[in-house]
Amino acid sequence: MARKAVAPRRRPGGRSGRIKEAVFAAVGALLQEHPAELPAMAAIAERAEVNPTSLYRRWGDVSRLVGEVAVDRLMREHPIRDTGSVRGDLVVWGIGVARGVSSRGNLTLLRILTAVPAEPADFEDIRSRPMGARLAELEKVLRRGQARGECVPTIGDVLEIVLAPIYLHGLFLGPMNRPTAGVQKLVDRALALAERQ
Amino acid sequence: MARKAVAPRRRPGGRSGRIKEAVFAAVGALLQEHPAELPAMAAIAERAEVNPTSLYRRWGDVSRLVGEVAVDRLMREHPIRDTGSVRGDLVVWGIGVARGVSSRGNLTLLRILTAVPAEPADFEDIRSRPMGARLAELEKVLRRGQARGECVPTIGDVLEIVLAPIYLHGLFLGPMNRPTAGVQKLVDRALALAERQ
Repeated sequence: MARKAVAPRRRPGGRSGRIKEAVFAAVGALLQEHPAELPAMAAIAERAEVNPTSLYRRWGDVSRLVGEVAVDRLMREHPIRDTGSVRGDLVVWGIGVARGVSSRGNLTLLRILTAVPAEPADFEDIRSRPMGARLAELEKVLRRGQARGECVPTIGDVLEIVLAPIYLHGLFLGPMNRPTAGVQKLVDRALALAERQ
Repeated sequence: MARKAVAPRRRPGGRSGRIKEAVFAAVGALLQEHPAELPAMAAIAERAEVNPTSLYRRWGDVSRLVGEVAVDRLMREHPIRDTGSVRGDLVVWGIGVARGVSSRGNLTLLRILTAVPAEPADFEDIRSRPMGARLAELEKVLRRGQARGECVPTIGDVLEIVLAPIYLHGLFLGPMNRPTAGVQKLVDRALALAERQ
């Protein structure tokens, strides 16, 4: 019954791709209208003109859906570039994150995500979460460096040493005063640790 | 006019101390009843039987008041102990924080605080915020170590290297699987960095 709930339309990109596009656009519009609120699944369904049941079936709950929207936006706004070195790639990535958490819309999204209770997890579990797609990108950066013979930190150390302080600033201390120098310091700290291990 | 709004009572601890006690208790009770909501200043005033005007005069806004309640609770539940070494003190402190962010009530408080927009700030500005009292405690730990001739990290490095990853786990990744080993690793990382500087 629920499977038939969404009316079939044209086929470019596939039905599943079209629904995703409409749903992500609906979430974006609702967040822009009410920046401090996690939108309700019913409101998203209405705006995207899809049946709420199919949203629940595909994303489980609204926090997972908003999480995927956040990561999708992040990956489009701040793609991880291949600068030729792990240091360069991580600095560009980190500056993007630092700018992201100082932009009002993204910070709101980050805050909404922190408002969603997380179950105990380790880095392995994260792969199955919305953030997993971004982690896969970061791991590509590290593998590329390894293939070039560079000494690279683990993904866990990149999250703890580089990402965590940027979030601490964005969420609690206020954005970093000098993001470029600040991020370079963090990346060099992660690389120095990798050298010693 | 507002100054007369609170009826004078007995004097132990002073009027100001009594008001603070009633207000903090009111915030605690409201958070327990509605754990996911930042309480309204009017509701706090009503519960504490004080005039809202005096709350605004003393705390400015509800986020600052709730921030002070959070830090007050943290300092009572997890006092920073003198274990005889900076490493020991920081490990005990970090484990307290890690446990704190895995307890439902405190995590809620932390999440409410992240929902409050922060202005750009550096570590100096933080001193004037609710968190300032806790930072002063941490700085005492570092000064004690220096006086014993230990090599100690800066307060900024303690926040970035030790505190930030604990918060990253609490807010995004889920609580650390093994908090003691995890925190020891972070503290040793901060100490190793201090040794090389």
